[in-house]
Amino acid sequence: MSKVKVLAVAVSIDGFGAGPQQSLEAPLGLGGEKLHEWMFQTRTFRRMFGEAGGSEGIDDQFVKQSFDNIGAWIIGRNMFGPVRGPWPDESWKGWWGDNPPFHAPVFVLTHYPRESLTMAGNTTFHFVTEGIHDALARAKQSAGDKDVRIGGGMATIRQYLLAGLVDEMHLALSPVLLGRGEALWTGIDLDAAGYECTAHVATEKAVHLLISRRRGR
Amino acid sequence: MSKVKVLAVAVSIDGFGAGPQQSLEAPLGLGGEKLHEWMFQTRTFRRMFGEAGGSEGIDDQFVKQSFDNIGAWIIGRNMFGPVRGPWPDESWKGWWGDNPPFHAPVFVLTHYPRESLTMAGNTTFHFVTEGIHDALARAKQSAGDKDVRIGGGMATIRQYLLAGLVDEMHLALSPVLLGRGEALWTGIDLDAAGYECTAHVATEKAVHLLISRRRGR
Repeated sequence: MSKVKVLAVAVSIDGFGAGPQQSLEAPLGLGGEKLHEWMFQTRTFRRMFGEAGGSEGIDDQFVKQSFDNIGAWIIGRNMFGPVRGPWPDESWKGWWGDNPPFHAPVFVLTHYPRESLTMAGNTTFHFVTEGIHDALARAKQSAGDKDVRIGGGMATIRQYLLAGLVDEMHLALSPVLLGRGEALWTGIDLDAAGYECTAHVATEKAVHLLISRRRGR
Repeated sequence: MSKVKVLAVAVSIDGFGAGPQQSLEAPLGLGGEKLHEWMFQTRTFRRMFGEAGGSEGIDDQFVKQSFDNIGAWIIGRNMFGPVRGPWPDESWKGWWGDNPPFHAPVFVLTHYPRESLTMAGNTTFHFVTEGIHDALARAKQSAGDKDVRIGGGMATIRQYLLAGLVDEMHLALSPVLLGRGEALWTGIDLDAAGYECTAHVATEKAVHLLISRRRGR
């Protein structure tokens, strides 16, 4: 059955999923790249960007799994790019070049309408102005039997968690302190929402945590 | 050289070091005992309370180390007990019975003066009304060459972290979601304060994280 998943989301020990002051120069916020070192060094990630080599252990398995059976994505507008407010033109096409790593429909949450944008490699960006429920309905319809992945950033993940719409979550806790940035947990009571941590495994670069709904709920 | 240490402090994945609604019946707050399961099952912890058996692996080593070379403790008033406001009498003597597990002077931060209290096993509670710096000065003097351990709770640890007075910290991240309670990280920027995570190791019950000042600072 199709599930809604948050996967391979990196957070710091102190609970930040991106650094402060995100911009064109620092898409992950200041220091935010430190959160993703466990991923950058994996074979799967490197191959996505045409690089050879990389690790093949547990970290790599989690990256690989995060792309398995994904039929559609939902991302926030700030993850799509640094442009804020009404779209000045159609020139911004995402951070990822002509062939983005999604290879599926991507529903971008925004307050400002824009025409859908088809890229190489079977990625199409659709701009959704009717909110998170509408985006999820459209993503589910596109995904069919496959899963819907909530890609980020933190604000988008938080909204779907608060609405109780996430079935499974894989967090990669990076052993770093960011101090400032986009906090994942503030105001979210996952225990009350019926979630629990079902497994954890540590590697040199990260602690992987699996979170899902408690059984019987 | 004598150091100021925060040791064996348990936090949930979502950053809570105690549950909500701490009381006489729930000294760790609702659900707070889940944070400490990694410790309850260790040989060292069980022996402190006269029980046989218990695990002897990594979790146990961290519990054992948390008592090594400690010459004095500092704890908050709410960790000492559930009594709030002026002391109505001298009857409350801590949660720990006649022979508390500190075996050293314990400086209790409070706004309300009270006579020092000597217990069995070489533990003396001193009640400090002049604030965290005064408590630390007195604890250091008592400890001599040994270390000062900031015992808790979260509010006390936060104050010492914010003041930059902690040299080393060992956190045990428990793979649970509390959802609510006493948050450790809110408003604390440990990166800006010059701290980093230097090591992490996971067991079945916890992820142990070592945090200290970056070299050269």
